[in-house]
Amino acid sequence: MAGLKIKPLADRVVVEPAPAEEKTASGIIIPDTAKEKPQRGNVVAVGAGKKDEPMTVKEGDTVLYGKFSGTEISIEGKDYLIMRESDIFAIV
Amino acid sequence: MAGLKIKPLADRVVVEPAPAEEKTASGIIIPDTAKEKPQRGNVVAVGAGKKDEPMTVKEGDTVLYGKFSGTEISIEGKDYLIMRESDIFAIV
Amino acid sequence: MAGLKIKPLADRVVVEPAPAEEKTASGIIIPDTAKEKPQRGNVVAVGAGKKDEPMTVKEGDTVLYGKFSGTEISIEGKDYLIMRESDIFAIV
Amino acid sequence: MAGLKIKPLADRVVVEPAPAEEKTASGIIIPDTAKEKPQRGNVVAVGAGKKDEPMTVKEGDTVLYGKFSGTEISIEGKDYLIMRESDIFAIV
Amino acid sequence: MAGLKIKPLADRVVVEPAPAEEKTASGIIIPDTAKEKPQRGNVVAVGAGKKDEPMTVKEGDTVLYGKFSGTEISIEGKDYLIMRESDIFAIV
Amino acid sequence: MAGLKIKPLADRVVVEPAPAEEKTASGIIIPDTAKEKPQRGNVVAVGAGKKDEPMTVKEGDTVLYGKFSGTEISIEGKDYLIMRESDIFAIV
Amino acid sequence: MAGLKIKPLADRVVVEPAPAEEKTASGIIIPDTAKEKPQRGNVVAVGAGKKDEPMTVKEGDTVLYGKFSGTEISIEGKDYLIMRESDIFAIV
Repeated sequence: MAGLKIKPLADRVVVEPAPAEEKTASGIIIPDTAKEKPQRGNVVAVGAGKKDEPMTVKEGDTVLYGKFSGTEISIEGKDYLIMRESDIFAIV
Repeated sequence: MAGLKIKPLADRVVVEPAPAEEKTASGIIIPDTAKEKPQRGNVVAVGAGKKDEPMTVKEGDTVLYGKFSGTEISIEGKDYLIMRESDIFAIV
Repeated sequence: MAGLKIKPLADRVVVEPAPAEEKTASGIIIPDTAKEKPQRGNVVAVGAGKKDEPMTVKEGDTVLYGKFSGTEISIEGKDYLIMRESDIFAIV
Repeated sequence: MAGLKIKPLADRVVVEPAPAEEKTASGIIIPDTAKEKPQRGNVVAVGAGKKDEPMTVKEGDTVLYGKFSGTEISIEGKDYLIMRESDIFAIV
Repeated sequence: MAGLKIKPLADRVVVEPAPAEEKTASGIIIPDTAKEKPQRGNVVAVGAGKKDEPMTVKEGDTVLYGKFSGTEISIEGKDYLIMRESDIFAIV
Repeated sequence: MAGLKIKPLADRVVVEPAPAEEKTASGIIIPDTAKEKPQRGNVVAVGAGKKDEPMTVKEGDTVLYGKFSGTEISIEGKDYLIMRESDIFAIV
Repeated sequence: MAGLKIKPLADRVVVEPAPAEEKTASGIIIPDTAKEKPQRGNVVAVGAGKKDEPMTVKEGDTVLYGKFSGTEISIEGKDYLIMRESDIFAIV
């Protein structure tokens, strides 16, 4: 994903949402419509940070973020989320 | 577009929205009324920035911005959006 | 307009709204009631700025501002708008 | 009005509203009930300012202020408005 | 009132509301239920101020304050208001 | 109460509400259900303060606080309130 | 719990909620559905803090937090809460 041609501004991060898991914790396979919206994703582009606030996440990190975080954008026909680093809870 | 006679104040940016794409990702041509409002545009004028906060975008950049960002203005009979740099998500 | 006897406080600016345009872009003359409320005006008085924030606009500038910006005031029987400089989008 | 015994705190200003004008711009005399609530007044007392923010208006200035600015107070049987300096638009 | 055993925190002030005036400006004596809630009171205790912001009012001052300012507290069977100094308009 | 094993974070304070007074000011004994929720309590634990803001209240102080201040917590089967120091009006 | 592979960002903390207590203070065993949502938990991961604000809680602390604090996350099939340190009331 290194070649993605997008430069997020300030403290923004572009995340590629992980596909929803096909199985529940107990191993039951769930049909497509019941899949939970993913909250886990891979960082594919990172802004330069705000004044005096360097970024913590970096390209390639797997991150957890809130269910309603970010804005959906489409780059080269594929969907990503662009959000502020403060919308990211943790690196896993 | 270099000759546009407008000087945005502070951290404001004038963006010329890109025309809506005529085809969907799958290649179907869609009629005019179904076109999505563009979220991609070209920067045509940039303010001087706020105190101690220089601007990142520059004239000629193609940018992504939120669906409801900015205010429509008309310059020489053509429509533009004027928004704050913080309303811009990324340079593409 | 140089002789207007008013001293705006802090970062306030007095603007004389431009008369609404009599013709649409396509050249159709529109009746008076359909005229859009002007968003373009001439700066006639400028405050001294706030602490450490000098003003950018100056008397005589033509400016663009939001449709609902400012408060109408009447000076010597004529209507003006008084607004903060941050309500002004751009100098044209 | 110099002898008014009141000391506004911080950035507050006591204003004596000007009597509503008896005539409209076109010279028609209007009955009492149609008078517009005045937005012009005389400064009769000024606070010491906030930390590092000296006051701009001074006793005796005629000022313009918003229609809903300030709180009515009664001093020696007469009505005044007490407001913050930031509620004052301009000195006229 | 000097012996009141209460130490307001930070920028808080304890005020003893003045009794409502028995007569209107025109000298008519009004019955008890029509009395306006007092907005004038005597300062009986003053906090130590906030960091770098010394207090302006002092014990014994008569002050004007907003109709809905402060919280009623009862000390030794008597009602007082405790409010922030910023809720006080002026010393009279 | 010195041995209470709880360390409030930042500017938080643990208060043990005083029992509601059994008698009204006029000496009438009121039944249990009419008792007012206490607004007076004893400080039993104090946080370390926020950066550059040392705490004013200390263990053992009797304090007044707003009727809806704080969150009820239960420690060793007994109810306390945990609140920010700024929710405390005064030391009595 | 030392080996939990998660790195909270900024001032965030991962808490493992304590199981709801099976008995009430008076010793009555309550059925499962009546159990109160726990407000006590163990800290299992701590962020690096925000600029100039080091963290106070550390891994292994038992903490009290508000009933509606944090966001539920699932790590390796187990539920945790991720919250800001400011959502934590006290260490017990």
